[in-house]
Amino acid sequence: MKKIAIQGYKASFHDQAARQFFGKDIEIVPCDTFKAVFEAVHNNTAESAVVAIENSLFGSINEVYDLLLAHKLQIVGEVYLRIEHCLVGLPGATLSDISEIHSHPVAMAQCEDYLDEHLPQAERFEHHDTAASVDDVKKWGDKHKAAIASEAAAKLHEMSIIQKNIETHHENYTRFVVLDIKPNKSDTADKTSMILETADKPGALYSALGVFAKQDINLTKLQSRPIVGRAWKYMFYVDVEAGAHSNALRKAISELNRQSCETIILGSYTSAR
Amino acid sequence: MKKIAIQGYKASFHDQAARQFFGKDIEIVPCDTFKAVFEAVHNNTAESAVVAIENSLFGSINEVYDLLLAHKLQIVGEVYLRIEHCLVGLPGATLSDISEIHSHPVAMAQCEDYLDEHLPQAERFEHHDTAASVDDVKKWGDKHKAAIASEAAAKLHEMSIIQKNIETHHENYTRFVVLDIKPNKSDTADKTSMILETADKPGALYSALGVFAKQDINLTKLQSRPIVGRAWKYMFYVDVEAGAHSNALRKAISELNRQSCETIILGSYTSAR
Repeated sequence: MKKIAIQGYKASFHDQAARQFFGKDIEIVPCDTFKAVFEAVHNNTAESAVVAIENSLFGSINEVYDLLLAHKLQIVGEVYLRIEHCLVGLPGATLSDISEIHSHPVAMAQCEDYLDEHLPQAERFEHHDTAASVDDVKKWGDKHKAAIASEAAAKLHEMSIIQKNIETHHENYTRFVVLDIKPNKSDTADKTSMILETADKPGALYSALGVFAKQDINLTKLQSRPIVGRAWKYMFYVDVEAGAHSNALRKAISELNRQSCETIILGSYTSAR
Repeated sequence: MKKIAIQGYKASFHDQAARQFFGKDIEIVPCDTFKAVFEAVHNNTAESAVVAIENSLFGSINEVYDLLLAHKLQIVGEVYLRIEHCLVGLPGATLSDISEIHSHPVAMAQCEDYLDEHLPQAERFEHHDTAASVDDVKKWGDKHKAAIASEAAAKLHEMSIIQKNIETHHENYTRFVVLDIKPNKSDTADKTSMILETADKPGALYSALGVFAKQDINLTKLQSRPIVGRAWKYMFYVDVEAGAHSNALRKAISELNRQSCETIILGSYTSAR
């Protein structure tokens, strides 16, 4: 079975994303941190990894962008997952029993309206994983404690769903990228993630975006990140709708390099949307 | 005395930034969260606020960008502060005594190389404020516990600095913005922060940046943030080197609006660099 490193545990959103991409027959290599996920692929503890890179409400996960630069792993695919949160308690627990909420801080923030309305007095405790918080609530065996997690996590641990879809905004999707040591060389790759480090002069970003416009290449994402050691200078992570081997993108990259804009290809893959 | 809301406590980096902008004779209104800071100005608990918006290593503080959109406070100034971290212990404590580190997670991350080299075995505990972690270490009175905080925090609590400048990258600066209910109408304003919501078509951002280029207005920052409720659509926060009342920026804004690019002015102020 293929070994896939994820940040988190069984039945977490990362686990669901990994199975959506690779199918059900995989072995999950659970990691506590994103850094550990990248290292697991580097040192061959896992063959591939699946990491969240962006949520439609929360925005980019900066740590993952920085790890993509620091490590030399290739993005070989992407997965989109709708995030639906449930309030999960011990079998028999009801809303009025709950005085403590345990979950990942992002999950709690995404359910803030529900919590403010229905559980204003409940104390909130941060965990590093939604699925693990369900496991903890089960172990504690206290009906006053509840977790926020996916339906899958509730089912895995045979816990009760007190309320489904408690997320404030239902347009809540997370985009994950699939990482590998080797690049994806498939001919069907129609999307490329890359880093642009533009020349240090006014208008350099405008000029770089013009290169893509000239080749009719559409950008689906633009994310700035600071360049470490050069205060207030930025690099730009862009996703473009073109495979790395397409003529249009190859022409664009030569033109960027001519403009003293450095480019780093993070990977080319088949768009999942 | 002018009341200034900050996230954090006395002798925190926010406190230092507030005094750098307003002078020493201010009354700090300490708040646990960024949200509480914005609310303190809204409900007149404080006259102004100072909030970190960006660090030269960590990047943008997304939560603050989102609060700027949600609340209608005006940016009326900015402050840059060099962040220097110290390892702080009880008087008499030495490096070999330390088995626990207490600090804000960002501060700990910024000192990771030092901690890995000199304190690889020490357990790390997250606090929501660097200065408060010094206060806690003092209260516990245990020489095995240390905090990571500023020199000012160590002095305020009469604690000992075991090692200065333990940050990995010395090019570590934080930019803070000063918030007020009313806009800054000063003639010396030469910088403006604004949000662009471009038309939903390929090349719209390129076209918007072209408007600034045509008016010779330099961008110092471009940060994308998701638009809540419209998955994978983005708005762009830009800082430009022009006052809101300059002819060039007024022309640029009319042209942007003509291109169906919506603009929200977050404030115009005097650049601190």
